[in-house]
Amino acid sequence: MTDLLHFEDFRAGQIFALGTHTLTPEEMIDYARDFDPQPQHLDPEAAKDLLGGLAASGWYLCALAMRMMVDGLFNRSTSLGAPGVDEVQWRRPVRAGDKVRLDGEVLDKRGSSRPERGFVRFRFSMWRPKETGEDERVMMFTCSVMFRRRAPAGSA
Amino acid sequence: MTDLLHFEDFRAGQIFALGTHTLTPEEMIDYARDFDPQPQHLDPEAAKDLLGGLAASGWYLCALAMRMMVDGLFNRSTSLGAPGVDEVQWRRPVRAGDKVRLDGEVLDKRGSSRPERGFVRFRFSMWRPKETGEDERVMMFTCSVMFRRRAPAGSA
Repeated sequence: MTDLLHFEDFRAGQIFALGTHTLTPEEMIDYARDFDPQPQHLDPEAAKDLLGGLAASGWYLCALAMRMMVDGLFNRSTSLGAPGVDEVQWRRPVRAGDKVRLDGEVLDKRGSSRPERGFVRFRFSMWRPKETGEDERVMMFTCSVMFRRRAPAGSA
Repeated sequence: MTDLLHFEDFRAGQIFALGTHTLTPEEMIDYARDFDPQPQHLDPEAAKDLLGGLAASGWYLCALAMRMMVDGLFNRSTSLGAPGVDEVQWRRPVRAGDKVRLDGEVLDKRGSSRPERGFVRFRFSMWRPKETGEDERVMMFTCSVMFRRRAPAGSA
């Protein structure tokens, strides 16, 4: 248990690298068929007008980010989940073949009304490398995640 | 084309009923296995401590809501998509067997810098009926959706 990340282990400014993923047309279209069957996510011809070509559902990018957050951070921590997310921004169309990476920056933290827990607020960002210049931020959101403390607030 | 909902057809206070859905354990677990493999969404024993029993991933509720929004509203409109969502709140655990309903309330609307388009801001809410009393709001978020106008702003 002691090597799990607890509330006390987070501090503002930390950045967690949460891996990379290359999108396939199959996974984008599978998700869109189930959950977001709009032409811009399913029909290459219709998508040309709207987004310059077939693009992943914004909700699929969130789902993909969550998988990377769970594998890279939450499942090696005392995370107890989150009551929601804020300011989800889908900033650029993401296409099949794009290799994206995810990171999570700690913005701030605060106690909970329950002394054995606390909240850490992150900004999760999905980036797409560019051939030259800075990576593009294609998607981002903020999220306050509840973690267990090693020791109750106010103790020792 | 003329029976599609355009920007002009929305006004603050309208509420769109977007159907109902009864969650199955299979669909909840399939989603969690792919995108949110945390114990509270996969392991009934571990979930007892955290959420009083197995609960749907919050992101799965968003995905389900999006499907109902597309089927019930966007695909019978001139929707051009949304740049993001805000204030996603997962307010109550949602369980297998729960029958939820979704509605979308128009909060306000505004023009776009492009005269042939405009933004309509909605609050989408997922509700669970209770045996007695008011329905519980289990999930909600706001979203500004871009629609085509019937006629460009400032014309006629």
